[in-house]
Amino acid sequence: MDVLEAIYTRRSVRQYTDELVSREEILEIIKAGSWAPSGLNNQPWRFAIVRDGEKREALAGLTKYRHIVAAAPVSIAVFCDRAVMYNDTKDHQAIGACLQNMLLAAHALGLGAVWLGEILKSADEVRDLFGLPKELELMAVVAVGRPAAGAHPRPGRKPVAELIVGEF
Amino acid sequence: MDVLEAIYTRRSVRQYTDELVSREEILEIIKAGSWAPSGLNNQPWRFAIVRDGEKREALAGLTKYRHIVAAAPVSIAVFCDRAVMYNDTKDHQAIGACLQNMLLAAHALGLGAVWLGEILKSADEVRDLFGLPKELELMAVVAVGRPAAGAHPRPGRKPVAELIVGEF
Repeated sequence: MDVLEAIYTRRSVRQYTDELVSREEILEIIKAGSWAPSGLNNQPWRFAIVRDGEKREALAGLTKYRHIVAAAPVSIAVFCDRAVMYNDTKDHQAIGACLQNMLLAAHALGLGAVWLGEILKSADEVRDLFGLPKELELMAVVAVGRPAAGAHPRPGRKPVAELIVGEF
Repeated sequence: MDVLEAIYTRRSVRQYTDELVSREEILEIIKAGSWAPSGLNNQPWRFAIVRDGEKREALAGLTKYRHIVAAAPVSIAVFCDRAVMYNDTKDHQAIGACLQNMLLAAHALGLGAVWLGEILKSADEVRDLFGLPKELELMAVVAVGRPAAGAHPRPGRKPVAELIVGEF
């Protein structure tokens, strides 16, 4: 899939078929994320893969978007490793770049994904659920599956002209 | 260009030919950025385009990567609009996703770009240089041009297996 086409046609997919996502697909999505740029190339991203029914249900219980996580055959929790971070703003931006690569890769693979941020209110519980150390700060959960038939609405965007605050 | 190929072959380009970047190309890069996802679809990104020689020199003087900004035919300063922000971490992540789209779009257009974060130490001076309001928080400057002949080294990445902290 062409990169500009991917950028312009990607949308948040919140409803999935029952079909599984292969381990190869999951690893490709994570690999794509890992090729984002980061300040000083510190690569602060870390990933936990959740497919197990019990853990998936427990994870789903930590967000108001329970139905999405419960329905997705796989969710990938993305963490920032405080042990390698050097600047909160820049490291959080790098994680955003990583997440965007993951969403684009999922879309290119014919999968559908959604970036869930609301679950950050339960960051400590998510870390505890997976038995992870305190240095790992939850950044987002990406739910992934094969898009169910039907509409996956996409919110519009402001015209570019409205976003340009100066031209010199 | 295929999206996965773009993700895996993109690199930071810091040396450029003298050839100009067209206004259409600049607007395509900004449009690609604007199609990133953002929490509540708040689209917090704002852009200033810098091509003018005098402003470009002044901008270059605000970073230790002066030679890069001075050499690039265009630089795009990316801001976050505090008036629409709702959560620093999530908004900074959204800006990171926007920046990654911009870098991928530049790469797909045959251009080369680099994400400059060090200039954030001069955020106030950059805002003053462009006469912008205090609500606009500098997030990065993206320098863009046509890649000069020669190597554009790309730092390696950790193997995916080292980035996976749990699998359930």
